[in-house]
Amino acid sequence: MKNNQKLSLGIDCGGTNLKVALVKPGGEIFKWTLAPINFKQKEERALRDIAKAVLTFLKKNEVTQVERVGMGIAGDVDQVEGVVRFSPNLGWKNVRVSAPLCQALGMPVILDNDANCAAWGAYCLDAKRNCQNLLCLTLGTGVGGGVILGRKLYRGSTGSAGEFGHMSIQFNGRKCKCGNLGCLESMLGAWGLTLSAEEGMDRGLSPELLRLTANGKKKITPKLIARAAHRKDAFAVALWQESGEHLGAALANLVNLFNPDRIVLCGGVSKVGKLLLDPTRRELAKRAFLVPAKHVRLTISQYDERLGVVGAALLASQ
Amino acid sequence: MKNNQKLSLGIDCGGTNLKVALVKPGGEIFKWTLAPINFKQKEERALRDIAKAVLTFLKKNEVTQVERVGMGIAGDVDQVEGVVRFSPNLGWKNVRVSAPLCQALGMPVILDNDANCAAWGAYCLDAKRNCQNLLCLTLGTGVGGGVILGRKLYRGSTGSAGEFGHMSIQFNGRKCKCGNLGCLESMLGAWGLTLSAEEGMDRGLSPELLRLTANGKKKITPKLIARAAHRKDAFAVALWQESGEHLGAALANLVNLFNPDRIVLCGGVSKVGKLLLDPTRRELAKRAFLVPAKHVRLTISQYDERLGVVGAALLASQ
Repeated sequence: MKNNQKLSLGIDCGGTNLKVALVKPGGEIFKWTLAPINFKQKEERALRDIAKAVLTFLKKNEVTQVERVGMGIAGDVDQVEGVVRFSPNLGWKNVRVSAPLCQALGMPVILDNDANCAAWGAYCLDAKRNCQNLLCLTLGTGVGGGVILGRKLYRGSTGSAGEFGHMSIQFNGRKCKCGNLGCLESMLGAWGLTLSAEEGMDRGLSPELLRLTANGKKKITPKLIARAAHRKDAFAVALWQESGEHLGAALANLVNLFNPDRIVLCGGVSKVGKLLLDPTRRELAKRAFLVPAKHVRLTISQYDERLGVVGAALLASQ
Repeated sequence: MKNNQKLSLGIDCGGTNLKVALVKPGGEIFKWTLAPINFKQKEERALRDIAKAVLTFLKKNEVTQVERVGMGIAGDVDQVEGVVRFSPNLGWKNVRVSAPLCQALGMPVILDNDANCAAWGAYCLDAKRNCQNLLCLTLGTGVGGGVILGRKLYRGSTGSAGEFGHMSIQFNGRKCKCGNLGCLESMLGAWGLTLSAEEGMDRGLSPELLRLTANGKKKITPKLIARAAHRKDAFAVALWQESGEHLGAALANLVNLFNPDRIVLCGGVSKVGKLLLDPTRRELAKRAFLVPAKHVRLTISQYDERLGVVGAALLASQ
């Protein structure tokens, strides 16, 4: 048994892969691994496979006991009961997770939403726990988020606070997957961005995207839209400009509502960097109240890939 | 000296009047009064007049000492230092309030923003402190608000959280007084509503409003717009319908962000009641996430006039 009493175990449960990591109290990753899990099989089997993967990982690293175990899953999670109420990614509905995993691992397992875990990770890693109030926006296929207030994760009354992607900033805007209109996600989620790009390509506005997708045969991604913009494709440049303005307007709302110390962006779409961040900053400054806008620090996470797994591990010790 | 040790003193500092009340721990008002204050004179004089009015009120009620004193002022307030940073209503800028009042009254004075006080009043009176998370929206000339999270007032990092009126729900909407576009206040604040009504009158759409304002000679108010709607004026009916939809969209955002137990509406515009509330409820249900939308209880405050003064008194004891 190694020096493991101070290590926490984080489990980030994506749609196909399980990310497992041993995490030091400061958030550094001691060891980590990826394990494929088949989520198409019955839930009990998938959970058994998860437990097996975790135990194999611990054994390999000669760790027999850890301080805490935290697990993040995309979807609607009952943190108190340790139940996944609904996860479209995994295809799970009302699945007890904490109890069977606890039994299999011999350790209590704290369950939370993956965006909450990422927010806690951003708080511990990007902010070094050195602020009171932090918002974290996950810009992926969808747009999610987590809210840290007074140095604690704020979950809301039924555990669903921080749905930043489903704040409408356009009263009669594009129909979102959630049913609302003009949600941030419908514009800035990867699906919203690619939809906008497709619309532009259909209208013949983007020769560069047409080239990059081999006349629309290759799947369009935010990465490709960024590449087109870097090649000075006018439509792609304008799309990022507009997307940044939308994000800036959304962040201005959040600044006026939450008055946070920090906002951290993470997820695939955030990786386009300045292309998105410059217009975002400009629009935020234009729209938000002066004092809170000056106060807030907006950054792209420097720890993107590990936020979820580190946050899960450290959230358990909150 | 009467049974006064359990009484708190609340001071609600409006633009022309001072509302002062002795408040019981449960939020009932024991005695109250209104005192006119001239805010056009120098700040020190106005503060001296406030202290005088309070002492006269206490003496008249034979109260020599109270548990706590809380004071609410419209504007940007530094709660920690007890300073009004900026109050357009009073014309004050960087005025120390707590210290001189404390000296004059011989009791510590807690200072806060009036919308925060109203929110705390709504939490104590409307919700009977019987929930965790509550949002209060003040629908007056402007739209403000306060945020109660985990049974505590949430002020944000620089004391300006809860600016519900300055959440944009229309990316390219009407220019708001704050500089942003499409803010809730620009549509639903009394000034936004009357602006919309004037636009309708100018276009000859509202014969009833024309009549009620004596061909535009009388000042238009939300109350008059409500009266026109009750008289089946199609434009006025549509304006309330649309305003309710805007409010519903804004509340859907707040439900998705804060996931609160309760939302309480107060202020002059909230008094139109069903005319506003019915479309608001419909739109909220249409737009917000299902579980938090079902969970939240939306009401118009039953204690409107006293929220600020009771909240100020009880906030001091938070």
